[in-house]
Amino acid sequence: MQAVNFLRMLKTGNMLRSTHSLFLIKKLRLSSVLFRNSSVGVKGEPAKPNIQTSVPGPKSQQLLEELSSLQQTGSVQLFADYDKCIGNYFVDADGNTFLDAFTQISSIPIGYNHPKLMEAFKDEHYLKELVNRPALGVFPSLSWPEMLKNVLMSVAPSGLNCVATMMCGSCSNENAYKSVFMWYRNKDRGGKMDFTPEEMESCMINQPPGAPSLSILSFKGGFHGRTFGALSTTRSKAIHKLDCPAFDWPVAPFPRYKYPLDQHQRENCEEDQKCLEQVEEVIQKYHKKGIPVAGMIVEPIQAEGGDNEASPDFFKNLQKICKKNGIALIIDEVQTGCGPTGKMWCHEHFNLPSPPDIVTFSKKMLTGGFYFSEEFKPLHPYRVFNTWMGDPGKLILLKQVLTVIKNDNLICQTQETGKYLKEGLHQLENEYPNIINSVRGRGTFLAYNAPTTELRDKINNTLKKNGVLSGVCGEKTIRIRPALIFEKKHAEIYLDTLRNIFKEF
Amino acid sequence: MQAVNFLRMLKTGNMLRSTHSLFLIKKLRLSSVLFRNSSVGVKGEPAKPNIQTSVPGPKSQQLLEELSSLQQTGSVQLFADYDKCIGNYFVDADGNTFLDAFTQISSIPIGYNHPKLMEAFKDEHYLKELVNRPALGVFPSLSWPEMLKNVLMSVAPSGLNCVATMMCGSCSNENAYKSVFMWYRNKDRGGKMDFTPEEMESCMINQPPGAPSLSILSFKGGFHGRTFGALSTTRSKAIHKLDCPAFDWPVAPFPRYKYPLDQHQRENCEEDQKCLEQVEEVIQKYHKKGIPVAGMIVEPIQAEGGDNEASPDFFKNLQKICKKNGIALIIDEVQTGCGPTGKMWCHEHFNLPSPPDIVTFSKKMLTGGFYFSEEFKPLHPYRVFNTWMGDPGKLILLKQVLTVIKNDNLICQTQETGKYLKEGLHQLENEYPNIINSVRGRGTFLAYNAPTTELRDKINNTLKKNGVLSGVCGEKTIRIRPALIFEKKHAEIYLDTLRNIFKEF
Repeated sequence: MQAVNFLRMLKTGNMLRSTHSLFLIKKLRLSSVLFRNSSVGVKGEPAKPNIQTSVPGPKSQQLLEELSSLQQTGSVQLFADYDKCIGNYFVDADGNTFLDAFTQISSIPIGYNHPKLMEAFKDEHYLKELVNRPALGVFPSLSWPEMLKNVLMSVAPSGLNCVATMMCGSCSNENAYKSVFMWYRNKDRGGKMDFTPEEMESCMINQPPGAPSLSILSFKGGFHGRTFGALSTTRSKAIHKLDCPAFDWPVAPFPRYKYPLDQHQRENCEEDQKCLEQVEEVIQKYHKKGIPVAGMIVEPIQAEGGDNEASPDFFKNLQKICKKNGIALIIDEVQTGCGPTGKMWCHEHFNLPSPPDIVTFSKKMLTGGFYFSEEFKPLHPYRVFNTWMGDPGKLILLKQVLTVIKNDNLICQTQETGKYLKEGLHQLENEYPNIINSVRGRGTFLAYNAPTTELRDKINNTLKKNGVLSGVCGEKTIRIRPALIFEKKHAEIYLDTLRNIFKEF
Repeated sequence: MQAVNFLRMLKTGNMLRSTHSLFLIKKLRLSSVLFRNSSVGVKGEPAKPNIQTSVPGPKSQQLLEELSSLQQTGSVQLFADYDKCIGNYFVDADGNTFLDAFTQISSIPIGYNHPKLMEAFKDEHYLKELVNRPALGVFPSLSWPEMLKNVLMSVAPSGLNCVATMMCGSCSNENAYKSVFMWYRNKDRGGKMDFTPEEMESCMINQPPGAPSLSILSFKGGFHGRTFGALSTTRSKAIHKLDCPAFDWPVAPFPRYKYPLDQHQRENCEEDQKCLEQVEEVIQKYHKKGIPVAGMIVEPIQAEGGDNEASPDFFKNLQKICKKNGIALIIDEVQTGCGPTGKMWCHEHFNLPSPPDIVTFSKKMLTGGFYFSEEFKPLHPYRVFNTWMGDPGKLILLKQVLTVIKNDNLICQTQETGKYLKEGLHQLENEYPNIINSVRGRGTFLAYNAPTTELRDKINNTLKKNGVLSGVCGEKTIRIRPALIFEKKHAEIYLDTLRNIFKEF
C-alpha cells in the first residue's frame, strides 16, 4: 500500500525531492477517502441477463452486413443499443441484455449511461470546452492548467509531477518513447541546448546521428499499441505485426508463472531470476550491436498477451537494472490504470523504492496521456507536440469519473468484489480442474486459463450466448474486465453462469 | 471542377467501376447544392478586433507559468476564453479579441461556438453516443453503419468506397501505411490468406520476412505527423525529427515554384519534370537497396513545410509513376480537406484520371480517418484495429458541420472570399515587393513569403499585436487558415491590418 511505501521511503531516505513527498501526502489523503467502506448499486439495472435471440441476433447480423461494405468487420461481435445500456448491463441491437465483464476492451470506467456522465455537459461552459476543441499546445483554454491539476494530477502516480495528454494508448506510448529518446540524447550532449549541423541534416534523411540508432526494450507477450513505434514494442501476437516494417529493438522474456502461486514459489522465483538475467543480457547485446537501449516499457500485468503477472520483486529488480544502465523505465498502465486492480495504478502494488520515470494511460482514463518526472520534459518546444494534444471534452468526463470513484468508494469496492470473484474462480478450478486453471490477477482484473485455445473460445462464446460478456487474451486465457461499479451480486452471476456452463461440458 | 472531371472521365473511359460513377453522380448532386450562391453572417460577432493589453497579456502570462510546472509550454501563444469566442473571433484570457485566421492550426471548420454545434448533443440519443464511447471494432452502436454512410461517406472522395475512422492525423497516416504494407505483401503472396511459419516467427522479433523491408516514399517539405511511422515520412523541419530513430525510407524533392506562376511557366514546368525524374530514380534506388517502395504519401499543398503547391500535371504524373511501379498513392488531406481550398478535397483540383488509393483526413473533419478503395480492406480482422478506432462523438459534431457547409454554401463562400483575399494579397505584393512575395494557394488556403525568417516572424507577431491571428510555416512563409465562415469583410480586416503594418515598416 501507498502508506507503507511512503513510510518505507521515509526510512530509507529514498525520497529526495520535496515535491515528491508533497504528492505522496496528497495521495495518502485521497487514499483514505478512496478506501472508506461502502457499497452503492446502480439505479435502473436489470436483475440479470436476458437473451431472446441467437447471438448475434438477426439485427446485429444485418448491421454487420451494412458495415462490411465500408470496412473490414471480422472483429465486430455485436451492435449496441446505447440508449438502453445501463450500469453493468450491455443491451444489443436485438434487445438482448448482457452482464458486461469486458466493457469495451476494459475502457468503460463507471458503467453505461452513468447519470454523472450524462450531466457532464449541462453547464454551457463545459459544452463550449467540448465543441471548441483547441490546439492545446498553442491556444489552450484558460481553464486548462486548473483542469490538468484538479483532474489528472489529483490521481498522478507518486513522484511524477508532469503530465502530457494524448489521444489514445498507442500515441501515449509513442510520445513516451520520444520523450525517452530526447532525454537520452540530451544526456549524451551533456545538457547542451544546441544540435550540431550534422544532426540537423542527417535527421532529415532518417539517418544517424540526427535520427539515432537507439531502442526501446519490451517483453515477450507485451502489448503497447499498433502504430509503428508502439508496434515495434508489441510482442503479443503475430497478427498485429505481420507485414509491418519494424525497428530492430530488443525483446526479453517476461515471467510465466506456475499456479497456484503459493505452491510454486521456488519455481516462480527462479523464473523471475532467469528473466532478469536475460534482460541484462539483451541490454548488453544491443549495446554491442550499436543500438543501445534508451528505455524499457512494461505492463504491470500483461493483458493482451495473456494476463501474465509478475512479482513486485521482479519489477523492483527491473527498476534496478534500468538505473544501473541509464535506461528510462516506462510503466504502461493503459489497461491496468484507473482502479481495476484495486489501486489507482497497478504499479502501486510493487512498492518500488522510487517512482518509475514515465507512466502511460488511456482506456478507463478516457483520455490518453502520460505522467513523467521533470527530467523528461523536453528542452525545446514542438518536440512532443501535435495539433490537438488530447481533448478537453475527455477530461470533463474524467473529472466526473474520478468524483464517482471517490464518492462511491469504487477502489475499495473493486478490491472487495475482486476478492469474492477470485475466491469463486478458485473454487471452480478445484471443482473443474480439467476445464479451468491458473486463476490469477488483482482486484477485478482477473483471468483464468482453459487447457486449450479451442476450449477457451468455446467457454467465452458460451458465456456470451448465456448473457455474459467476457474477453479472451493470450493463447488459452479468458480475462475479466468489468467496470469499477461491478459488485458482489454481478460477480455471483458471472460465477453461476460459468458453473452452469462447466456442468454442461 | 468535378463535373468537368466526370465528363472527361466518361469520354476517356477511365471510369471502370460502376460504384465509382455512382459516387460521382451523388457528389455532383451534392456539389450543385454546395455551390448555390449566398452569404450568411455570424450572429453576435464583433465588428473588428479589439486589443486592450500587451499580447500575451498578464493573465495569459500567469496561466503560462502555471502550465509550465506541468509540461513543456514553449509553443503556447495565448490562453483562450472559449465562453467568449464567437464565429471568426478568438477572445483570450485577458479579454483581447482577435480575428482568427489560423483557427487552432486549421482545425476549426465553422468558427467558434456555432449554434449548430452547441445543439449537437441536445438529443439524449447523441449524448449517450458521446458518453458511452465504444470499442468501435467490437461493439459499435446500432447507429454506426448509418452514421458512417450519412456523414463520412456523403463527402467521400470520388471512387473511394471504404472508410476507417481514427483518432488524429498521425494515426490516420500510420494506419494508411499499415493498410498499404498489407496490400503490398498480399500481392506478393498472390492473395493467399495464410502466413508462413517463418513470417509468423520473424515478425515477433521485428525481422523480415514477417516484418518486411518495405518503405513509404515522402517528399522534402512534407509533413505527415509525429508518431514513429508518420515521423519517418515527415520531412519539414529538423526540430520534429531530431533524436527520434527513423525508418530508412526514401525522400524525393517536391517542386518549388517561382512566382507569379503566369510569369514562370517554363521554369516551373521544368521544376516539375526534374522532381518527377528524381521520384523515379529514388524508387529504383530503394528497390535495389532491398527496401522497395510500397506506398507514396503526398499533400496536395505542403502546409507545415511552407505552403508549397504543385501543378495538377505533377500530381497526374505522380499517379502514373505509382501505377507503373505498383505503388499505392496516399493523398494526405489532413490540413487541406473539408473545404478550405474551395473544394471539399483539394485533390479534386487535379482531375486525376482515377481515384487515389487512400485519402487521409483529420483537423476540420474533427475525427481522424481515411478513405480507401476496396482492395485496401485487410483480408484478416484485427489488422487495422485499436481500442477506440475513432469517436462517435466527433462524427456527431461533423454531421452538424457538414449540414452547415451545405446549407450556408460555405464551399462557394470560401471560393469567393479566397478570390478576394488573394487579389488583395497580390495587390500588396505589387505595392510592397520588398516585404511580401510569392502569394499563392487555393480558396482561403493562402500564403505569402517575406524575404527573411526574421521579417516573416516580425510580420506575424505584429499581426497578432494588432488583433489578427495568422500562422507561420516553412522558412519564410505566413499561412492563412481561416474557418469556412470567413467572409469578404473578414478578409478586408486581414488585408487592412497587413497594409497598415507594411506602411509602418
